[in-house]
Amino acid sequence: MTEPLQTWQDFLDISPFQRWLGLKVEEAGEGRLVIGLEWREEFVSNPNSKSMHGGILASLIDLGGLYAILTTRSMATATVDLRVDYHRPATGGAIRATSRVIKLGSKVSSAETEITGADGKLLASGRGVYLMG
Amino acid sequence: MTEPLQTWQDFLDISPFQRWLGLKVEEAGEGRLVIGLEWREEFVSNPNSKSMHGGILASLIDLGGLYAILTTRSMATATVDLRVDYHRPATGGAIRATSRVIKLGSKVSSAETEITGADGKLLASGRGVYLMG
Amino acid sequence: MTEPLQTWQDFLDISPFQRWLGLKVEEAGEGRLVIGLEWREEFVSNPNSKSMHGGILASLIDLGGLYAILTTRSMATATVDLRVDYHRPATGGAIRATSRVIKLGSKVSSAETEITGADGKLLASGRGVYLMG
Amino acid sequence: MTEPLQTWQDFLDISPFQRWLGLKVEEAGEGRLVIGLEWREEFVSNPNSKSMHGGILASLIDLGGLYAILTTRSMATATVDLRVDYHRPATGGAIRATSRVIKLGSKVSSAETEITGADGKLLASGRGVYLMG
Repeated sequence: MTEPLQTWQDFLDISPFQRWLGLKVEEAGEGRLVIGLEWREEFVSNPNSKSMHGGILASLIDLGGLYAILTTRSMATATVDLRVDYHRPATGGAIRATSRVIKLGSKVSSAETEITGADGKLLASGRGVYLMG
Repeated sequence: MTEPLQTWQDFLDISPFQRWLGLKVEEAGEGRLVIGLEWREEFVSNPNSKSMHGGILASLIDLGGLYAILTTRSMATATVDLRVDYHRPATGGAIRATSRVIKLGSKVSSAETEITGADGKLLASGRGVYLMG
Repeated sequence: MTEPLQTWQDFLDISPFQRWLGLKVEEAGEGRLVIGLEWREEFVSNPNSKSMHGGILASLIDLGGLYAILTTRSMATATVDLRVDYHRPATGGAIRATSRVIKLGSKVSSAETEITGADGKLLASGRGVYLMG
Repeated sequence: MTEPLQTWQDFLDISPFQRWLGLKVEEAGEGRLVIGLEWREEFVSNPNSKSMHGGILASLIDLGGLYAILTTRSMATATVDLRVDYHRPATGGAIRATSRVIKLGSKVSSAETEITGADGKLLASGRGVYLMG
């Protein structure tokens, strides 16, 4: 029913910034998407604590939610707003963003993303509201 | 009173991700910071519309608010949460992030950032809440 | 150009909950609205600290932003989402909510509200995004 | 392990505003709280659509999250910020707010609340970040 992972991977990789991030689609279902991200030095915010920049995590929550909506074959065209909670510093190792649709609407839709570390602990979570069109 | 721009520039450039972004400190005052960002193809979200990725704008709001707090010589150590409103697509040209402290607290502080395009139009705005330490 | 204050007062008072709050329109301009609220025991969250309930402040930010959009003669029909920052406890005396439009859009609009105490100090601030129709 | 429902009911009812709302604690567990709210005309925002005011829903999300944290015997003292997504209008009948802790921290904690209607449909959802003390 859902497109193969490679379709979503190709779709994500249309974006130059998303290619730079090096996203890897791990799972895709109706209204659900799991994206993996390998650790890279370029993502670091504070070189002392070796923590990942909040902007990288925010990017994952923004894009993860958008593509989760797209898996429902609904057309989300732009992010209206974004909210991110930072729970723990991400200090090394691959991370995983699991996104799911909260509510599909005709005008706006919302989706939620949880980002976990290699040990499964919640690092950040948040929501985007997206314009439909 | 405030440190020279180069001090803030050096401080921002400690972070590998912030170096990758290529931030340029344009103004710094007590509780206020203006950062410029040149357009780069790597920032693009959608290659058709040539719009800047929401994650880049979110990154600016996250880091701009944090450093605005640091200009008051208060110590912000981590972002608690972040909210971003996307008002118009950023579709080319340099952008500018103007950050100001909303409220300094002993435990948490908040700061607001407005991002404008070359024509001065508001592209995105948002707030971060930061842990003090 | 703008309708007289009484027009906005009548408009606010259509809502039973807004009547219960006892809102008083103090100023109205194009994209701007100032609403006063008298202190009432029923608003109290914590009877020990005598602080106003966060829900009352959130209500003011929600409704203030909506009506600020209406002053532009644009039609906002529903709140998409709401964000509130609590800066200081409101512990007595009248408060004032000053709302202004951030961005008018054809599909969604955003407005910001600052709530100050009798001494002019910022108690809470926040934003709503509203569906246009 | 957890206190009986009446303990939480009494605790909620300390607040005059919460008494006015007429909250009813339906379930309480470690980090989880379910609160019911009967429909009342005083909650109405728009008398034409008979929809519940967004401020009432925001209040439930604010207080539900705070008390969910308290069920863990951690001490949350104030709301730092609040985010609410409005998914569908609440147009009659009792509603239910289900709150759960997302992350307990030593300085700040976060909790999420979902509000559903009598038919189980999601009406609003959101999060609060709370100061610990």
